[in-house]
Amino acid sequence: MTKKLARGVAVVGVGMSKFGAFPDKTSRDLFVEAYQELKTSVQKGFNPNDIEAFYMGNFSSDQFERQGHLAPIVASWIGLSPIASVRIEDACASGGVALRQAVLGIASGQYDVVLVGGLEKMTDLPGAQVTDALASAADTMFEIPAGFTFPGFYAAMATAYMNEHNGDLDALLKVGIKNHVNGALNEKAQFGQTIPDVMAGKVAKAIQKGLPVPEWKDEMDFLRDPKANPMIAWPLRLFDCSPVSDGGAAVLLVAEDLVAKYTDQPIFVIGTGQASDGSLPERASLSHVPSAVGAGEQAYAMAGKTPAEIDFAEVHDCFTIAEIMATEDLGFFKPGEGWKAAMDGKTARDGEKPINTSGGLKAKGHPVGASGVAQVVEVWKQLHGTAGARQLPGTPRIGLTHNVGGTGQTSVVHIFERRF
Amino acid sequence: MTKKLARGVAVVGVGMSKFGAFPDKTSRDLFVEAYQELKTSVQKGFNPNDIEAFYMGNFSSDQFERQGHLAPIVASWIGLSPIASVRIEDACASGGVALRQAVLGIASGQYDVVLVGGLEKMTDLPGAQVTDALASAADTMFEIPAGFTFPGFYAAMATAYMNEHNGDLDALLKVGIKNHVNGALNEKAQFGQTIPDVMAGKVAKAIQKGLPVPEWKDEMDFLRDPKANPMIAWPLRLFDCSPVSDGGAAVLLVAEDLVAKYTDQPIFVIGTGQASDGSLPERASLSHVPSAVGAGEQAYAMAGKTPAEIDFAEVHDCFTIAEIMATEDLGFFKPGEGWKAAMDGKTARDGEKPINTSGGLKAKGHPVGASGVAQVVEVWKQLHGTAGARQLPGTPRIGLTHNVGGTGQTSVVHIFERRF
Repeated sequence: MTKKLARGVAVVGVGMSKFGAFPDKTSRDLFVEAYQELKTSVQKGFNPNDIEAFYMGNFSSDQFERQGHLAPIVASWIGLSPIASVRIEDACASGGVALRQAVLGIASGQYDVVLVGGLEKMTDLPGAQVTDALASAADTMFEIPAGFTFPGFYAAMATAYMNEHNGDLDALLKVGIKNHVNGALNEKAQFGQTIPDVMAGKVAKAIQKGLPVPEWKDEMDFLRDPKANPMIAWPLRLFDCSPVSDGGAAVLLVAEDLVAKYTDQPIFVIGTGQASDGSLPERASLSHVPSAVGAGEQAYAMAGKTPAEIDFAEVHDCFTIAEIMATEDLGFFKPGEGWKAAMDGKTARDGEKPINTSGGLKAKGHPVGASGVAQVVEVWKQLHGTAGARQLPGTPRIGLTHNVGGTGQTSVVHIFERRF
Repeated sequence: MTKKLARGVAVVGVGMSKFGAFPDKTSRDLFVEAYQELKTSVQKGFNPNDIEAFYMGNFSSDQFERQGHLAPIVASWIGLSPIASVRIEDACASGGVALRQAVLGIASGQYDVVLVGGLEKMTDLPGAQVTDALASAADTMFEIPAGFTFPGFYAAMATAYMNEHNGDLDALLKVGIKNHVNGALNEKAQFGQTIPDVMAGKVAKAIQKGLPVPEWKDEMDFLRDPKANPMIAWPLRLFDCSPVSDGGAAVLLVAEDLVAKYTDQPIFVIGTGQASDGSLPERASLSHVPSAVGAGEQAYAMAGKTPAEIDFAEVHDCFTIAEIMATEDLGFFKPGEGWKAAMDGKTARDGEKPINTSGGLKAKGHPVGASGVAQVVEVWKQLHGTAGARQLPGTPRIGLTHNVGGTGQTSVVHIFERRF
């Protein structure tokens, strides 16, 4: 069943903070960084008094900062009281779902101009507590009692995928290499280094300390070295996992009938889809994410586009295997072909379907509530031709974002089109 | 600025669990109770396959149950996967804000039939941890460092209110007495006792144990007795505070063009409003809640109704003073007149403006994320004439709900009209 929105919606501004670990900043400070950048991005000028509502994607400031009720508190911090302010939580998909609620809010006729935020401050807690907090995104009755935390869940999916499709585990490493190449070109990324950069750093450090200098033949040799890239949950190693991050992102949406007031270069939201699912033990197969397939189908139907018509995508690579599955779930490659596409460079910036030009969650960082909103920032930049050294050739016209929560209990997909 | 919804929305079914402390139940179990009752409430029959989205108001299952991502997990539990499932968090206003998002979702054209849930399971934690978890709904930078928890915040508001309006603290006790009278007629209420019931229970217990039998002249004498009704934060005593509760509530919304399929007795959502605010130290006065005033004005404007046209209301009486302020913020009584109205019985079931016929948060219970949705359950019952022993005379036509988060950082107001 294809649903149309009662009113069209466009993106007219974006901003994001640097992603990383910022012990001296609160989540509020990080959101200010994003909001200040957004202000400067609105072509014909920005008036905060125009904003009528604020949707904030955040996974668990309750646990990370002991601060609930984050949406009105941040709205007050940036001077937007008394606008309606809503926190949206769907685990790591919180940002993408917040975007969707903002789109529906405008389509409903209730709002004309809406600010979408995504925010998470994760590094204040010790690592083990971060792992525990993240584990609360899994099902505490049916997933957690199996003794898994998130790397384990995605390791199980990786195992199932590679077994079912006779895949090569090297494909995982290739995803990480590519995303580090892209992230190194993104000044906002938590990891601004390619894998060779990381290798060179380790060599330099060994020389400096007078230790034996490690010798690796190439990137793959480095990534297979259990000392350099330790196993976290087989077959996932350290460089297969997105980091623990702090960061914020912001997007300004307006109704189509008001676009001309803000910009001559709008990016329209032409498709939105969201689906849910039960826990891993309930699924017939672990080698794909059914909610992502469903959310993608909804978004494609609304947009009237096929996967082949998508020029590039930001997908939810919380782990390298997740990117491979996403490229299949979204129909970019057939089931079982995603790992080959990664091996063959088809998802690189010069490939047939560029994936995660921003560096993805893997290299850009993954402040969970912010990730779904930061994906839109990258789509905006690529569609405007302002992505700098990582700009795709020919200025693409259609981009897609794919944001997943938990072990796939939530997926949300959006499709954006440049109309200028 | 009055905004109209692009499409009308009606309530066609409601349900709620019993509110109370249920150590043997999870939040999922409680929501099943609410959902099962909702199923039987849809006049022309209920088909779960019709439901296209699920909006779940929940304050902090993260902290109370170590379970984030609650919306898709509950959706799966009741068999509704793969519908879009969104958790909404705005502290104690989470339920009312979830209702509003569902209304906007239908108005947007994206959904025709939406399930709204409200849910909280608070009693699994020790009391001090519950207080800490609730405190995360306040501003951790500007409110919590003052050393307050929530009874203290509302005590400060009570002090400011009574000082500014030369009020009588007995008005607080009168609110509690009234809400216990109403709650005693509500089989779902956590406290199904009037204050005289409570007094009789204490007398019986003293006799049974051979202790001195307490003697109180009347209810007011009992409530002024510091042993019977200890001070929590002056001037608020134990019986001025809503309890810690477990419970769930559910509401089924449909687009106006589909109402006839579900019922000949629809309740329409004719007004919705939401506003936010900064923290207490930023406010010019503590004697009212500006966000509630703003949300009410929005809802009245959309509904085209005045406060005088509202037949009855369920308001957010997390503390007795909050009910008094709410009746002024909503325009039922002039500033400074709310405490007199409570003293004079104007808010009783036989008064000119019945408030909290359900027993309110005070007596019905306050599972925080559920409260805003459970308010709609009461409005439904009163408008249908099915509220049993607490039914208002003459079957009212228009009811209002008022749900507040934190110290007033969020307020959300809805107005409902019977159209049969």
